[in-house]
Amino acid sequence: MAQKKIRGLGLNKQYPGRLIVVEGCDGSGKSTQLHLLRVWLQSQGYPVVFTEWNSSAIVKQATRRAKRKELLTPTTFSLIHACDFADRYEKVILPPLHAGCIVLADRYVYTAYARDVARGCDLQWVRNTYRFAVQPTIAFYFHAPLEVSISRILFGRPSLKYYEAGMDTGLSLDPVESFKLFQGRIKDQYDRMARQEQFEVIDATRSIHETWGEVQKVVQEKLADYEPPKQN
Amino acid sequence: MAQKKIRGLGLNKQYPGRLIVVEGCDGSGKSTQLHLLRVWLQSQGYPVVFTEWNSSAIVKQATRRAKRKELLTPTTFSLIHACDFADRYEKVILPPLHAGCIVLADRYVYTAYARDVARGCDLQWVRNTYRFAVQPTIAFYFHAPLEVSISRILFGRPSLKYYEAGMDTGLSLDPVESFKLFQGRIKDQYDRMARQEQFEVIDATRSIHETWGEVQKVVQEKLADYEPPKQN
Repeated sequence: MAQKKIRGLGLNKQYPGRLIVVEGCDGSGKSTQLHLLRVWLQSQGYPVVFTEWNSSAIVKQATRRAKRKELLTPTTFSLIHACDFADRYEKVILPPLHAGCIVLADRYVYTAYARDVARGCDLQWVRNTYRFAVQPTIAFYFHAPLEVSISRILFGRPSLKYYEAGMDTGLSLDPVESFKLFQGRIKDQYDRMARQEQFEVIDATRSIHETWGEVQKVVQEKLADYEPPKQN
Repeated sequence: MAQKKIRGLGLNKQYPGRLIVVEGCDGSGKSTQLHLLRVWLQSQGYPVVFTEWNSSAIVKQATRRAKRKELLTPTTFSLIHACDFADRYEKVILPPLHAGCIVLADRYVYTAYARDVARGCDLQWVRNTYRFAVQPTIAFYFHAPLEVSISRILFGRPSLKYYEAGMDTGLSLDPVESFKLFQGRIKDQYDRMARQEQFEVIDATRSIHETWGEVQKVVQEKLADYEPPKQN
């Protein structure tokens, strides 16, 4: 599989597996699509490994405690997520790739680029921190107007978490208003990346079924040359 | 106070306080000297803040748990310490500096440069991670032959911890042997930095009293123009 190096990501190591990541604002429907993809790939007997953002056992507790205290600065916030990612990357993502599996990641380094820069970190500093990560086979960007993704999140949501709403950025004292402004900043970052990185941009305004059709088509194309590891 | 920018450290922010850090291999006697310095400065009525490596409340527990599991790769190990440092830096080091205090740090970014590179991380990657940190007023490097520092550590020490001995580097299956080899690598990094950074190199083979005399002399010179904040 030919892989071009994305500037900012580490020298691309070759591996027999495939890495598919989904990116986008909260409420863009990316997780739903990744779930459909997971079920579909498994139904075809492919070895699939799933991993999601901010879920490493080692730093999960620290992150939760730190967030509860609402004491993180952008730098610490960025590094604590980099820790989490590095831990998952080296234990959950890389080994299966080398074993020839298909790894599905709900959010990858681009989430850090978008959120950390939206919080005020320097983009090059953040990119360098994640330099060790390999380029994904497919990076889906689920693109939807801000109003759409925001209304999907706020619909029936009792309250927004402090960092989720970007309250630490001081954009607004009103959580909902802050969330909207913060998501706007994140979307700006994603849109910028969409012009620089090799994103597969997906129109996320359509129905789950329509969107899935497009996702499935891209995956079929990109995985045409994929061969699962021999089961002896 | 004139401060030159050390390559790798962030653009140097100006602050009315002073930052004095001690670096060197374990057993170099740097902590003892920093303690003497702390007592001496306080006895003169200076506002002194003390901080040490790897002690941030937020990530301390995560680090301990992670280390206990002996599951950290060099990248994760590096980032978890960067988290700890960033947290302490922004809460314990920077505010007092801006308030005009003298901050004493037992180990600073150079410890990360030395240890992470000794573990196999890329030096420029590590330096970039710590780019946000300001250059210290004085960076003492307590230099002693490996045998001296190692014997000080091993003397009466029941056992060495897994990472302390650098067992994760696979240098040797014998903790003591591994510790010696790992400390050797760290010393090589410090000696390299001593040629590049503006270290105050202290001969750490002499008695505590003799060494203290030299430390005190350097501090008196470098703090000649220091004025503590007015107490109104």
